[in-house]
Amino acid sequence: MANYTASIEKLLECLIKFPGIGRRSAERIVAHVLGASKDEIRVLSESLNKVKESVRSCRICNNLSEEDTCKICQDIRRQKEIVCVVEKPSDVTAIEKAGNFHGVYHVLLGSISPLEGRGPSDLKIDGLIQRIKESSIKEIIIATDADTEGETTSIYITKLLKPLGVHLSRIGLGIPVGSNLEYADATTLSKSLESRRTI
Amino acid sequence: MANYTASIEKLLECLIKFPGIGRRSAERIVAHVLGASKDEIRVLSESLNKVKESVRSCRICNNLSEEDTCKICQDIRRQKEIVCVVEKPSDVTAIEKAGNFHGVYHVLLGSISPLEGRGPSDLKIDGLIQRIKESSIKEIIIATDADTEGETTSIYITKLLKPLGVHLSRIGLGIPVGSNLEYADATTLSKSLESRRTI
Repeated sequence: MANYTASIEKLLECLIKFPGIGRRSAERIVAHVLGASKDEIRVLSESLNKVKESVRSCRICNNLSEEDTCKICQDIRRQKEIVCVVEKPSDVTAIEKAGNFHGVYHVLLGSISPLEGRGPSDLKIDGLIQRIKESSIKEIIIATDADTEGETTSIYITKLLKPLGVHLSRIGLGIPVGSNLEYADATTLSKSLESRRTI
Repeated sequence: MANYTASIEKLLECLIKFPGIGRRSAERIVAHVLGASKDEIRVLSESLNKVKESVRSCRICNNLSEEDTCKICQDIRRQKEIVCVVEKPSDVTAIEKAGNFHGVYHVLLGSISPLEGRGPSDLKIDGLIQRIKESSIKEIIIATDADTEGETTSIYITKLLKPLGVHLSRIGLGIPVGSNLEYADATTLSKSLESRRTI
């Protein structure tokens, strides 16, 4: 390590804090930084600060936004009466990539995890109840993760929203498209059998 | 992708240019940036610019430095008469980590690769010849990579320095410590037999 200069050590320290970046990856990034043009690195550092300054949560759905409301909530072509409930903004990205959902979202910005000390109060759920009461929402699709936290969150939301008279559904759980049945785990297989459809 | 804001897309674009960072990793880094404090990201972006502003090549050996000469060249305890020749600054780091070399370095900042159009003129070699002529250098250890480029570079340097009457050596090539003989490739095994030592 003796070989690195003070400013390089400082940068390595910052980089290692990122998920998926270990010492080795950080060193490779530093090598790239050293080889890159001053302008390229200036643009990167400005982009980093710009993201922190301008990105916030959409007032309506908590999705990422640089304005008061996000692009999806602003889009007049989206069906405002169908709301897909997800845990985090990257889930919105994943569903948007799939491209066949034309409703809007509600981002909980969390999930219920007693083990990690996160309860219902850590979810941004009040806004959704408000939306259901004040607008013409007809269907809520719960698209939280298929893990323990996601399932717990799904059950909690179901209980909370049932009395509001809105149609509730949970995304389908089963064998991923393109994968082999024999490699699926038992729980996924059993979920897949439960959610069978008449053809 | 529709879900990302303009500033996030800009940051993703910058991040993907880095080696080992694909779209998925970049998205994870962005998620971390969004979750990090403004201060943390400010420190990161300042570190990036600081590295570009202050890091340059050591006047003597071309190693990374924030001053006219690097820490190793400045160190009076290092044996200035033994010079280890490497391709790049990260090789200096690797050897320094090993911890048993007490001489100084010469960083070529490149290697000879006819396939990629890099010839002898792309190596920083003049400074080394100058050093040999002007100072009391007794031994040169050539520690270029053990690949084709590194070997070619080693042969070229050997031919160039031989007439200067300095003792030349090449680092040992063979089975890596801790690895199994049966998994070593044929070339490594043959090199390993060549470089056998009496015990």
